[in-house]
Amino acid sequence: MGSPVHRVSLGDTWSRQMHPDMESERYMQSFDVERLTNILDGGAQNTALRRKVESIIHSYPEFSRKDNYFMTQNERYKAAMRRAFHIRLIAQRLGWLEDGRELGYAYRALSGDVALNIHRVFLKALRSLGSEEQIAKWDPLCKNIQIIATYAQTELGHGTYLQGLETEATYDAATQEFVIHSPTLTATKWWPGDRIIVGDIGPKMDFDQMDNGFLRLNHVRVPRENMLSRFAQVLPDGTYIKLGTAQSNYLPMVVVRVELLLGEVLPTLQKACVIATRYSVIRRQSQLRPSDPEAKVLDYQTQQQKLFPQLAISYAFHFLAVSLLEFFQHAYTAILNRDFSLLPELHALSTGMKAMMSEFCTQGAEMCRRACGGHGYSKLSGLPSLVTKLSASCTYEGENTVLYLQVARFLVKSYLQTQMSPGSTPQRSLPPSVAYLATPDLARCPAQRAADFLCPELYTTAWAHVAARLIKDSVHHLQTLTQSGADQHEAWNQTTVIHLQAAKAHCYYVTVKGFTEALEKLENESAIQQVLKRLCDLHAIHGILTNSGDFLHDAFLSGAQVDMARTAYLDLLRLIRKDAILLTDAFDFTDECLNSALGCYDGNVYERLFQWAQKSPTNTQENPAYEEYIRPLLQSWRSKL
Amino acid sequence: MGSPVHRVSLGDTWSRQMHPDMESERYMQSFDVERLTNILDGGAQNTALRRKVESIIHSYPEFSRKDNYFMTQNERYKAAMRRAFHIRLIAQRLGWLEDGRELGYAYRALSGDVALNIHRVFLKALRSLGSEEQIAKWDPLCKNIQIIATYAQTELGHGTYLQGLETEATYDAATQEFVIHSPTLTATKWWPGDRIIVGDIGPKMDFDQMDNGFLRLNHVRVPRENMLSRFAQVLPDGTYIKLGTAQSNYLPMVVVRVELLLGEVLPTLQKACVIATRYSVIRRQSQLRPSDPEAKVLDYQTQQQKLFPQLAISYAFHFLAVSLLEFFQHAYTAILNRDFSLLPELHALSTGMKAMMSEFCTQGAEMCRRACGGHGYSKLSGLPSLVTKLSASCTYEGENTVLYLQVARFLVKSYLQTQMSPGSTPQRSLPPSVAYLATPDLARCPAQRAADFLCPELYTTAWAHVAARLIKDSVHHLQTLTQSGADQHEAWNQTTVIHLQAAKAHCYYVTVKGFTEALEKLENESAIQQVLKRLCDLHAIHGILTNSGDFLHDAFLSGAQVDMARTAYLDLLRLIRKDAILLTDAFDFTDECLNSALGCYDGNVYERLFQWAQKSPTNTQENPAYEEYIRPLLQSWRSKL
Repeated sequence: MGSPVHRVSLGDTWSRQMHPDMESERYMQSFDVERLTNILDGGAQNTALRRKVESIIHSYPEFSRKDNYFMTQNERYKAAMRRAFHIRLIAQRLGWLEDGRELGYAYRALSGDVALNIHRVFLKALRSLGSEEQIAKWDPLCKNIQIIATYAQTELGHGTYLQGLETEATYDAATQEFVIHSPTLTATKWWPGDRIIVGDIGPKMDFDQMDNGFLRLNHVRVPRENMLSRFAQVLPDGTYIKLGTAQSNYLPMVVVRVELLLGEVLPTLQKACVIATRYSVIRRQSQLRPSDPEAKVLDYQTQQQKLFPQLAISYAFHFLAVSLLEFFQHAYTAILNRDFSLLPELHALSTGMKAMMSEFCTQGAEMCRRACGGHGYSKLSGLPSLVTKLSASCTYEGENTVLYLQVARFLVKSYLQTQMSPGSTPQRSLPPSVAYLATPDLARCPAQRAADFLCPELYTTAWAHVAARLIKDSVHHLQTLTQSGADQHEAWNQTTVIHLQAAKAHCYYVTVKGFTEALEKLENESAIQQVLKRLCDLHAIHGILTNSGDFLHDAFLSGAQVDMARTAYLDLLRLIRKDAILLTDAFDFTDECLNSALGCYDGNVYERLFQWAQKSPTNTQENPAYEEYIRPLLQSWRSKL
Repeated sequence: MGSPVHRVSLGDTWSRQMHPDMESERYMQSFDVERLTNILDGGAQNTALRRKVESIIHSYPEFSRKDNYFMTQNERYKAAMRRAFHIRLIAQRLGWLEDGRELGYAYRALSGDVALNIHRVFLKALRSLGSEEQIAKWDPLCKNIQIIATYAQTELGHGTYLQGLETEATYDAATQEFVIHSPTLTATKWWPGDRIIVGDIGPKMDFDQMDNGFLRLNHVRVPRENMLSRFAQVLPDGTYIKLGTAQSNYLPMVVVRVELLLGEVLPTLQKACVIATRYSVIRRQSQLRPSDPEAKVLDYQTQQQKLFPQLAISYAFHFLAVSLLEFFQHAYTAILNRDFSLLPELHALSTGMKAMMSEFCTQGAEMCRRACGGHGYSKLSGLPSLVTKLSASCTYEGENTVLYLQVARFLVKSYLQTQMSPGSTPQRSLPPSVAYLATPDLARCPAQRAADFLCPELYTTAWAHVAARLIKDSVHHLQTLTQSGADQHEAWNQTTVIHLQAAKAHCYYVTVKGFTEALEKLENESAIQQVLKRLCDLHAIHGILTNSGDFLHDAFLSGAQVDMARTAYLDLLRLIRKDAILLTDAFDFTDECLNSALGCYDGNVYERLFQWAQKSPTNTQENPAYEEYIRPLLQSWRSKL
């Protein structure tokens, strides 16, 4: 077993000992937590390296985030810039590479609360869309911060719909320059960050560390050679040459999306789970029986129902994101070499997973926050900022509804492919994630008792059935409308609500399938496999219960079977309960990284919350309204106003 | 038709004209918007009075909230105290009464962004629990702010579970005093606001205008007469005398809850609807057909699906809250006279509606926020603060899960009452809100086509059926467990997830039933009745589709009928579309009250957003990180670090 000592934040008397209610949760361990951490890290050597980087980062006061909750927007931006500055110093000193694991771990330790992230987005765009010469020219300049770059795509009037962007680039063959111009107010670039000069778009729900700005261009001239030209070129005479497919320009967005999921979105939900679960074994409320002492709130079924589906999702998405990243790296290499055959599935998968993960993680983190009652509303819990950060992920890098509808188009195409006469296009060419559309299907679920729902084969098949039925249903509605005279665009727009439902079911299927496949690979880790299988079961069944209408609709499940699934679900909650703290410990977030008064490893919740509150400027400064308003109010009864 | 002129915020050239995309929405009016506003206000004279108060409030620069989004916590608190101060000046000058409509409208105009609200909570507690002598003594002191009171209930370690509070009150008969003491850290009072001296609990997700504090009591002595003694007294010798039921002490919470719904929770969702709907007719994205100009995003089915259920809820909850308030006022008078017969239903209704409204309004406002894409993430949209304010309402005044479970207990009792042998307790004694439990039920829904789902009788019956089935199911599970040897507490705790589901279905039924009853009263307003009926239909059907599993479970609905309901739902979205702006106009929020760059009456979204962003301190101050971090970073390539 790994020693948890490095997790404890020292410095206060009360923090030198573990809260007994926390200690008891770690006393009996049904699996090796350290081993699970290694699996999540992709190997014990990665865990060791990560911890080494974390201890370096946490040893510098320049990186401390403990005053974050008391800062203004400007102060948070400055602190993030300070971190960006010092991280470069350290990276240079220790020889950390721009794409090495160390920097990734450093960003994780700082929860991404570091400036110049958009600069890194530019770097990815350069590497995806730039020619070899362009990369050779600008990549070192960027890496050494000789230039600070931004990524200015979204405009005041347009975001996800890229074709609507208004900024004009006119080629002037005489000077071999592009003239870049913002013709209207709505063409103003909005959101790009890390800029040097222009303007800030004002206060946001969160992301104060980022100076999201605006940018208006007044006939700015840019040399022809500066257009990123891996997949498209403009010749000196203005001729446009296409070297890739229409989608290749979206490649940087795919890169950013995939890395975002593992680097930003998922860890944020995981932290929320850690904080809420830890707090729930310290917080006591009411008795389970009149004579008992007050119970830990985690012992209540309703609290388990709030937290454990989020914990299950945290693991489900981890394994899915890892396999998506592997597929991405494989496809990316091919695409850079102009083999675009994997692009449609890569696009559909990354799009769907971005939409689903950001949606579920946001919802899950908010659920964790509310599960902490009033204290979850305190910024000192760390939870409000996790939620407001995640909320943004539902919109940035592609608005989720639009993304789901892109998945739906892919599903419609894939389904129509299965309907073609055999021989014209062989069915085996269906990409793996939609292969179930061509697989023979059961009309009824064979489950006869609750325990049958703990069979991965059974619930994966159930999800495939529902996804296939909804896709078929959406195609049917499309075709009915076109046959009754609607043109294809009208038919599409009148059925988007139905397509959305199909796309979401498909994405859920993908997560269930992905989790079961990851479990199969853990056959040599039986204790860990067993505890994770419970989460996998819970994830699948929770989805069935939440969407039971989709399963009952064609009587694939009967009402009695839904009740069996519910019984299985309630049993799972009880089983997961005893491993809950260990399962959150396994994510191995340092106390500094969590930055939460409720979620520290030692469980000393109330002492820490009380102490942190004292540091608030509202307690260290005078009451700003007393002299001016309160005293006169109180005195007004003497000298009537 | 009422003139909308008073709605327009003047002052900028571009704001002197209506955006043509907004104008076209108001060109054809299928109903009289002003008349609907009067109905919402409870009469034309109320509308007139409200507008008069609003114009007074908005004429004072002291009340301006336009810099709110740029302020620190301390600045927001001070500004709120400034408003509390000036509102008292004006109230005294104009003779506004503490409980008069004028002050209510003033608070509405300021979105409750005024200090000393907890002081008003104390006043309500005093009037509910104080004896006549106590009220006579303290009420004038409070009203004239000769004392500033707070309401210190929640402790660091305990909130909703009042029996667990640790603060001790020991009666000392010798001096006839109570000794009030906080024996532990977790007994520290946490959250009470408006205090003069003690401490602040630190930064929160929102509610910066409120100085939520903590309070530790070290053997503080309080005279015996200060205990509020309408329903319980302590005699000089220490004898405790009970004058009310066990629940009577909860009365102040019931008062606060009911007033909160109409005064705080619901208007916040309504504002989010106004902002998102108005923005959605200005924002254009993509084409519905390739040759068309870009479409207003409100013309997309998926955008309608996001916004219109929230609009329907805004109206459903309005009518429900009004009738709840009427019932409350009737019951409150009886209770103050020690007639407690209506208390159980009042408690169940106010509890259930508080839980459901806060949950749905929070979810709805977040949906509206996301429907505005990236701009909905800007604080200048007004939406982030509406969401973070509403989030708190899911926790304060009783955590929602706990409240739903209180409703569930009432439902279980009510159901068991219907099962008693006739004669023992007459079935007609069931309170009106659960009378459906004793009504003969259909086994199958009779709908044969989509239009049948537009029948209030049909969908109200459907909701009653599902609620009754789920309640019966939860009782069945309880009884099965107790029959198999579990004691009643264990049985309850193992079925809370099931009870929760039943309570939620019951609450939904109450909202549907309440909306249909309100519509019946509008028989002389046929145009308004027609447009509101669409919202009522949408509310009922949207709930059916979202919970279709509950309706399919026992085959009350077939899959084909669910599809009919979906067809009816999609048709309704299309019909509501043309009235959407008018339906949000009818709420009649001033631009100042909305305080949103996206949601103003004139539709000049981009100009206002761009202008407001310029005012941000990030644009009016120097870049705080340039000299210290950015310049050295950029120069580091010259002199290698």
